[in-house]
Amino acid sequence: MMAEVKRFLVGQPLETAAQHHQRLSKRIALAVFSSDALSSVAYASEAILFVLVLAGPAALSLVVPLSLAIVLLLLIVGFSYRQTIHAYPNGGGAYIVAHENLGVIPGLIAAASLLIDYVLTVAVSISSGVFAITSLASAWGYPALGDYRVEIALACIALITIINLRGVKESGTIFSVPTYIFIASMIGLIGVGLFRTASGGWVTATPMVETAAQAAEPLGVFLLLRAFAAGCTALTGVEAISNGVPAFNRPEPKNASTTLLWMIVTLGTMFLGISVLAHFYGAVPREDQSVISQIASQIFGIGPVYFIIQVATALILVLAANTSYADFPRLASLLSRDRFLPRQFASRGDRLVFSNGILALGVFAALLVIIFNAREQAMLPLYAIGVFISFTLSQFGMVLHWRRTREPGWQTSVLINGLGAVLTAIVLAVIVMTKFSQGAWAVLLLTPILVLIFRAIYAHYGDVARQLSLEKMGSVQAVRRHTALVLVSGVHRGVIPALEFARSLAPDNTTALFVDLDAEQTNTIKTKWEHWGSGIPLKILESPYRSLVRPILRYIDQVDAEYDDDVLSVILPEFIPSKWWQHLLHNQTALAIKAALHFRKNIVVISVPYHLER
Amino acid sequence: MMAEVKRFLVGQPLETAAQHHQRLSKRIALAVFSSDALSSVAYASEAILFVLVLAGPAALSLVVPLSLAIVLLLLIVGFSYRQTIHAYPNGGGAYIVAHENLGVIPGLIAAASLLIDYVLTVAVSISSGVFAITSLASAWGYPALGDYRVEIALACIALITIINLRGVKESGTIFSVPTYIFIASMIGLIGVGLFRTASGGWVTATPMVETAAQAAEPLGVFLLLRAFAAGCTALTGVEAISNGVPAFNRPEPKNASTTLLWMIVTLGTMFLGISVLAHFYGAVPREDQSVISQIASQIFGIGPVYFIIQVATALILVLAANTSYADFPRLASLLSRDRFLPRQFASRGDRLVFSNGILALGVFAALLVIIFNAREQAMLPLYAIGVFISFTLSQFGMVLHWRRTREPGWQTSVLINGLGAVLTAIVLAVIVMTKFSQGAWAVLLLTPILVLIFRAIYAHYGDVARQLSLEKMGSVQAVRRHTALVLVSGVHRGVIPALEFARSLAPDNTTALFVDLDAEQTNTIKTKWEHWGSGIPLKILESPYRSLVRPILRYIDQVDAEYDDDVLSVILPEFIPSKWWQHLLHNQTALAIKAALHFRKNIVVISVPYHLER
Repeated sequence: MMAEVKRFLVGQPLETAAQHHQRLSKRIALAVFSSDALSSVAYASEAILFVLVLAGPAALSLVVPLSLAIVLLLLIVGFSYRQTIHAYPNGGGAYIVAHENLGVIPGLIAAASLLIDYVLTVAVSISSGVFAITSLASAWGYPALGDYRVEIALACIALITIINLRGVKESGTIFSVPTYIFIASMIGLIGVGLFRTASGGWVTATPMVETAAQAAEPLGVFLLLRAFAAGCTALTGVEAISNGVPAFNRPEPKNASTTLLWMIVTLGTMFLGISVLAHFYGAVPREDQSVISQIASQIFGIGPVYFIIQVATALILVLAANTSYADFPRLASLLSRDRFLPRQFASRGDRLVFSNGILALGVFAALLVIIFNAREQAMLPLYAIGVFISFTLSQFGMVLHWRRTREPGWQTSVLINGLGAVLTAIVLAVIVMTKFSQGAWAVLLLTPILVLIFRAIYAHYGDVARQLSLEKMGSVQAVRRHTALVLVSGVHRGVIPALEFARSLAPDNTTALFVDLDAEQTNTIKTKWEHWGSGIPLKILESPYRSLVRPILRYIDQVDAEYDDDVLSVILPEFIPSKWWQHLLHNQTALAIKAALHFRKNIVVISVPYHLER
Repeated sequence: MMAEVKRFLVGQPLETAAQHHQRLSKRIALAVFSSDALSSVAYASEAILFVLVLAGPAALSLVVPLSLAIVLLLLIVGFSYRQTIHAYPNGGGAYIVAHENLGVIPGLIAAASLLIDYVLTVAVSISSGVFAITSLASAWGYPALGDYRVEIALACIALITIINLRGVKESGTIFSVPTYIFIASMIGLIGVGLFRTASGGWVTATPMVETAAQAAEPLGVFLLLRAFAAGCTALTGVEAISNGVPAFNRPEPKNASTTLLWMIVTLGTMFLGISVLAHFYGAVPREDQSVISQIASQIFGIGPVYFIIQVATALILVLAANTSYADFPRLASLLSRDRFLPRQFASRGDRLVFSNGILALGVFAALLVIIFNAREQAMLPLYAIGVFISFTLSQFGMVLHWRRTREPGWQTSVLINGLGAVLTAIVLAVIVMTKFSQGAWAVLLLTPILVLIFRAIYAHYGDVARQLSLEKMGSVQAVRRHTALVLVSGVHRGVIPALEFARSLAPDNTTALFVDLDAEQTNTIKTKWEHWGSGIPLKILESPYRSLVRPILRYIDQVDAEYDDDVLSVILPEFIPSKWWQHLLHNQTALAIKAALHFRKNIVVISVPYHLER
C-alpha cells in the first residue's frame, strides 16, 4: 500500500538510460538560472526599509543611496564571476573552486555555508511568495488569509518537493514565462511609477509609519551598516550561472558570461528602481502588505495590473525556491561522492533525481518555516551570510587559481578577483557584525559543526575501506566446523524445517534450545521431544525473570567459547502468517532475538520460514 | 538507553518465584474492592441533577425519590451477588459465570462490555477526581486550573499506569486510608448537613440555575427515566467483591459476603445522603464546582474540612481508577489464555504484572479523556451500559447455574438471581433507550465488534494449531540438496565469511549475485572477481530502474523453479559498524532485502556478519 501511495505521488520509475542533458539558449538560461537572484527584488528593498524605519520616517529616504552602493557591489561580484565562468567551463561552484585552490577545509566551509543558504532560500522565497499572495488577498479585503501563512507555505514546500521527486524535465520554456512576466511587470511598474512621479514634480509621499515605531534607535553608522547588510540579500543567487556553465549552448563560457551580464543589469535596474519608488511612494514595512504591493496598488490601483504584479512576484519566488531543489541535491551528491556525506545522497531515485537530497531540503525548509512562522523578514538576518562566505572563499580561490596557472593576462584577473574577494570579505564582516545578535550567530555556529560532521563521515568511510581491504587475503575456504543452535518455541510443524536445516549443516553438533517460562509447558515439551526430537539434544534454559532473550544470549556466549575454529549459527524457525494483521497475534520474539544477535560478534543468524496457509 | 529509561520508570525485573498472594481481612478488603463502587458517590447524584435541570429548577427535588429507587435496585443486585460469591468461591466474574452457564457468545459479550467499562472507569474516575481538585482550586480563587483539566488527567493516567507497571504490592493498608477518610468525611458531611437543615426547619434553598437552562425540556416520563438511568452509575463496581473472593481470609465466601453487605449499606447511605443534601442545599450542576464541593463549602465554609473532603474525594476516585488497573489486565489475560485475545496479554512482564494489559488500558483511557475533554458528565452516558450488560448476563447465568446444580434451597436462589436478572435487564433497557443518542450507541456498536474480533482471533489460533500439528509426521531428516545465493555489494573483506559459509553449505551449488547499478563499478568487480572469487560463479543482474531488491527477487524465483527437492538459501554478508550512528552512513539494503524475502515462501535467509572494529 505504501508502495502505491509512492507511485501515485512520485510516478513510475524511469530507466537509467532515460537520463539526458538539455542545452539551453541564453534567453532560456537567463530564466532558469536567475529566478533566485531576480526574485530578491521582492524583499531586498523592504529589508533595508525594515532597518531604517527603526530610526524614524526621516531615515527612510536613505534607501536610495544604500541601494546604489549595493548595485555597485553587485557589479563587482558579477565581474568576478565572469572570470570563474571562463576558468571553470565544467561548472565552478564555490565548493569546487575553494576545494581545488584553497584546500579541503575551505572547500567544506564553502559547501556547508551553501547548504545552509539553499535551505534558507527555500524558506525565505516561499514565505515571501506567500506574503505576496496574502498581501493581494488583504488588498482585496480578505486579510484573514494572512493567518494561514505557515500552512500555505508548508503546502507549497510539500508540493515543490513532490514535483522535484517526480523529476523536473529541464524544460526551460515553461520556466521562462513567469520570469519574463516578472521582469516585464517590474520594469513596467518602475517606468510608470517614475513617469508619474516626474510629472507630479518629484514629490515624496509621507511614509505612514506607526507612531510606536518612530525613532526607536538613533541613526548612527551601525544602523546604516545594518541596513546595508540587510540589502545585501539582493546578491543571493548571483553565483547560479557560474555553477551551471555546462548547460549552455556552445561556446558555453561565452554564452554564460553574456547571460550573467544581462542578469546583473536586470537585477540592478529592478532593485534600484523599486528602492527609488519605495522612497517616492512612501512605502514602509507593514504586516499586511508587502512594499511592492503598497507601491503597485498606489500606481495601478487594486485592479488587474496589480493582480498580475502580485501573482508574478509569487511565481518567481516559487521558481527561486525551485532552483535550490536543483542546487542542494547536486552539491550534496558531490559531497557524498567525495565521502563527506552519507552515500545515500549520491544515488538517484526512481525518477533519476537525487531523491534523498530533495527530501532533506524539503524537511529542513519546512522546519525553518515553522520556527520562523513563515515571516521572511525574520529569516533574512540568517540569510546572505552563507552566500557571502562562499563568495569570499570562491574569489580568493580564483586569485590563487590565476597565480598558479599564469595564463596570459593573469595579473588583470588576479586584480578583478582580488577586488571581489576583499570587498565580499568586508561585506561579510559587516553582515556578521550587524546581524550577529539577530540570528547570524546560529549560522556561524552551524557552519563549523557541519564541517566537523563532514570530516567525521569521511574518516569513517576511510576506516571502513581500510578494514575491508582484501590485501594479504588468501582464497575462499569452506567453513571447517559448524555449530548450530535451533531455538524452539514448542514441538510443532513450524520447527521441523529448521531442524532439518540444522541436521544438514551440523549433523553432529546441533542443539535445540527451549526457554523455560512456564513449568507446565516445559514438561509437555520434554515429553513430546522424546518422540519427535529425532535424537537432537534439547537444552532447557532457566529464565527466572521470564526474559526470552537474555538466557539465550548467555548460553550462546557459553557455546561460543567452546571452539575457536567453528562458525556458530543460530537457527530461528519463523512461522509466517498469511495475513498482515495476524502478525500482531504472535509474539515478535524472532525480531527481538535477531536485533539482540545483530550486535554479537561472529554469529550467523539463519531464518527458516514456515508459511501458514490461512 | 531505552532500556535504562525503562529500568528507571518500571524498576528492576522481579523473579518469577517472587510471586505470592496476600490474604485480606474484611476491613482491608472493603477498602481494596469497594473504592470503585463508593467513589461513584462523587458523581452519581450530580448525574441525576444534570438531567433533571433540563426541566427547570422545580424538577431538581425529584433527585430524592430517584435516589431511593436506585438504592432499592442496589440492594437487590447486592443480594444477587451474595449468591454468586457462594457459588464461585474461586472468583465469579461475569465472563466466567456467563461463559460457563450461558455459552461462549454470552461470555464474550460480558467480557467485551466489561473491558469497555473498565476503560470508562479510569477515564470517568480520573476526570471526576480532577474536577474535585479544580473545584477546590476554583473555590480558593484559582479558577484557571480548570483550563488544564485534560493535561492534569493525562498526567494522572500516566502516573497510575507507571505505578501499576512497577507492580502494586497488595498492601491494602495503604489503600484503606483514603477509603476510610472518604467514608468518614462523607458520613460527617451528611450528618452535619442534615443536622443543620433539621435545626433550620427543613428549609430548601433555592437552586441557582442559570436562566438559559430553565425548563429546556418538559418533565415527562422519558426525562425521569433518563435521570434514573444517569443515577445508575452509582452501581458500577458493585461486582468487584465477587470477582475477588479468593483474596479474602478463610472462610472466603462468608467473609466476602459480609464485606459485600457492608459495602452496599455504606454506598447506599452515602449516595442517598448526598442526594438529600443536594436537594436541601440547592446544589446544581456547574462548570466550575462539583455538587459535593457546593454542598461541602456551604456546610463547612471554605476551610480545612472542605479541603479534606475535596482531597479525599479526589483520592478515592484515583483509587477507583486503580482498581480497573487490576481488573482489566486480569480479564484480558483470561481472554488471552482462552485464545480470544493476542497471547501477549497473558504473559507477565518484568514486574510480574500483565504489562500489556496495563499499557492498553492506559492508552485507551487517555484517548477517552482527550476525546471527552476530561468531562466525566459527558462520558457518563456511555458508562454503566457495560456494567448492566454484565450484571444481567451474570445473573441469568446464575439462574441456570442453580437449575443445573439443584443444591439444597436452589429454588430460593433462582428466585433471588431471577429477580436480579429481570430487574437489571429492565434497567439496561431503560439506560439504552434514554442514553442511546447521547453516546450509548457507541458502546452498543463496539460490543459486538469486540466479540467478532475475539472470535476471529480464536479462529486464527485454532487454524495455526491445526496447521502446526505434528500428526502424521515422520522423523527429522537432513536437507538433501542446498542451493546458495550470496549477495555481494563489492569484492571486499566483508563478503569473505559469507562466501566461506556458502562453500560449506552448498559446495557445488553456490552463486554470487551482484546487481549492476553503475557500469564502471560492475567492470571493476568483474575484474576483481577473477582473482578473488575462488571459482564461485558470479552472476551480474541487470537493473534498468536502479532497484536492488526487484532484480534479486526475480532471479530467486528463477532459481527456485529449477529444483523441487532443494532448500534455497539467500546469504547476506552484513558488515556491522561499531557505533550506532555509523549505521546511518550505510545503505540499509540488507534490511530491505530481508523484509522483501520475509514474505517469499520457502527461502532461508542467512545473515553472515562482519564486524568492523572502528
